[in-house]
Amino acid sequence: MRILVTGGTGYIGSHTVLTLLSAGHDVVAVDNLSNSSPESLRRVGELAGREATFVKADITDEAALDAVFSDHSPEAVIHFAGLKAVGESARIPLDYYFNNVTGTIALLRVMERHAVRTIVFSSSATVYGDHNPAPYIEKMEIGAMNPYGRTKEQIEDILSDLGASDPSWRIALLRYFNPVGAHPSGRIGEDPQGIPNNLVPFIAQVAVGRREKLMVFGGDYPTPDGTCQRDFIHVVDLAEGHAAALEYLQGHEGVYRWNLGSGTGTSVLEMLHAFEKAVGSPIPYEIAPRRPGDLPAFWAGPSKALADLGWSTTRSVDQMCEDHWRWQKNNPMGYQDA
Amino acid sequence: MRILVTGGTGYIGSHTVLTLLSAGHDVVAVDNLSNSSPESLRRVGELAGREATFVKADITDEAALDAVFSDHSPEAVIHFAGLKAVGESARIPLDYYFNNVTGTIALLRVMERHAVRTIVFSSSATVYGDHNPAPYIEKMEIGAMNPYGRTKEQIEDILSDLGASDPSWRIALLRYFNPVGAHPSGRIGEDPQGIPNNLVPFIAQVAVGRREKLMVFGGDYPTPDGTCQRDFIHVVDLAEGHAAALEYLQGHEGVYRWNLGSGTGTSVLEMLHAFEKAVGSPIPYEIAPRRPGDLPAFWAGPSKALADLGWSTTRSVDQMCEDHWRWQKNNPMGYQDA
Repeated sequence: MRILVTGGTGYIGSHTVLTLLSAGHDVVAVDNLSNSSPESLRRVGELAGREATFVKADITDEAALDAVFSDHSPEAVIHFAGLKAVGESARIPLDYYFNNVTGTIALLRVMERHAVRTIVFSSSATVYGDHNPAPYIEKMEIGAMNPYGRTKEQIEDILSDLGASDPSWRIALLRYFNPVGAHPSGRIGEDPQGIPNNLVPFIAQVAVGRREKLMVFGGDYPTPDGTCQRDFIHVVDLAEGHAAALEYLQGHEGVYRWNLGSGTGTSVLEMLHAFEKAVGSPIPYEIAPRRPGDLPAFWAGPSKALADLGWSTTRSVDQMCEDHWRWQKNNPMGYQDA
Repeated sequence: MRILVTGGTGYIGSHTVLTLLSAGHDVVAVDNLSNSSPESLRRVGELAGREATFVKADITDEAALDAVFSDHSPEAVIHFAGLKAVGESARIPLDYYFNNVTGTIALLRVMERHAVRTIVFSSSATVYGDHNPAPYIEKMEIGAMNPYGRTKEQIEDILSDLGASDPSWRIALLRYFNPVGAHPSGRIGEDPQGIPNNLVPFIAQVAVGRREKLMVFGGDYPTPDGTCQRDFIHVVDLAEGHAAALEYLQGHEGVYRWNLGSGTGTSVLEMLHAFEKAVGSPIPYEIAPRRPGDLPAFWAGPSKALADLGWSTTRSVDQMCEDHWRWQKNNPMGYQDA
């Protein structure tokens, strides 16, 4: 297939492009490079032994997207492009709604004009909000708690309404839990700009000497070791989940929701210790007060993805840490080193 | 004040422009004329004795909006522009999300660039959905049941997040119940394109001979006469509610939600009979099966608007019908007659 990947130079995007190329698909990657480097795709090409086509374009620009569709005739879209920092979304919500919601509406309008009606969308477990207990399953009512999560929820609603209006659409809404790790080559990985928002990139930057210590927000939660539990998923497992969802859509019209997670909660301290094992030395940390909005325990019920897609995670927390560390160690400043 | 009114040539928009001009404000009306006629504003000018400035522009076009703000320097915005037919929204949801959500995000971006941070937004009682009993009050959880309603809910969320991110915003979310009636002059009124979606315009077209009979959807609801009860509000009361909300925002930063309704349920048959009284002759109707999605009873709790704004409805159902009929009788084909 010819697959358009928006946000294709980003962390999950680049790993998914690699998975798709390795499976023999042709890929056109689109990115505005606001938060990523084209170096990721260059390395993906080396790893795959074949290149994705890259077009620098912003998904809010319908004319640019129209040209991409005319020039490359994709048959399906995997849509990653979007802003993704929860804290930032509360400070500049309009940028989030514009990039994520306006951008997705523009993409869908262009898809409709070019009669491309297959899309795999990067949603987020964030849409579950706080009114459900773990494990989170797809049939729960959703209700995001911050602007970032609301952009994902709004896009899910838009895609659901679109699918209901025209049954020829094939739509997968993938609710990610906590992606970490990197391709085992150590050549591509997560490259956050500024202070990392997520746990493992922060730990990795402490381990490599870019940050002094990890702040653990809350040590008195009602969990086994008092720190929050999350469902970490290896980014290569996640990329394979996208390929599985796309394959499922080849045989099924309609709108589908799948969690992509391991089904296991791992605490912040457990993750820290797994990372220390990968690094081979202790990583300084400090217990700080709880952050407002953090839930104590958050993990996926992953059985629907297994039943429908035959997909489940296969890579362990130790492997996530080893792969993440290999990437960080080899690229202490991320793609800036290139 | 200099006030920008989007959707200014439409039904509620034109009545609000008249109210604003009559109160001494300067008005710039913007409309793409996709569903309305500039003749409405010409007549508003006659009635007010002064003209609003009209600019034909689409709110999804940021460059056009930027020019309007540069040319006219509005101090506040009343935002009506949007698609509004529930049934159509299920058939072409992407058009609804584009016009309503993309359009509002574009408008807000332009407002932010021009440091205009006062907006009164046309929301809808539709956001309350079906998980609340009447009377509907502002603190209830919302949850729209169709794409049109979801566009309003999404815009409410966007505006709420924007207000939370920057307390200098002044935002009113006005949840309309069922606007009917017309200016008592009979010169301006509702001019639906095609088959009317709403009850009173349909009754009025039957009365004037454009339609054969009214279909009443459901005669076996658990209501006094078996037909649905709705909260009808005279469009001039509604227009005055907008002026009151705008005045409130002059003294208050933040985000506010107000129902604009009468607080009284009136059944479909009661409305029909009130209209017959205004016309002076019977109007043929037939009881048809219930429509999916219609709620039996739906009316506002209007006390928050009274407490905060000192505003409540003052015009009766009889007056709504008399004024609506005067408009319809004098303009059987709406503004096409002009």
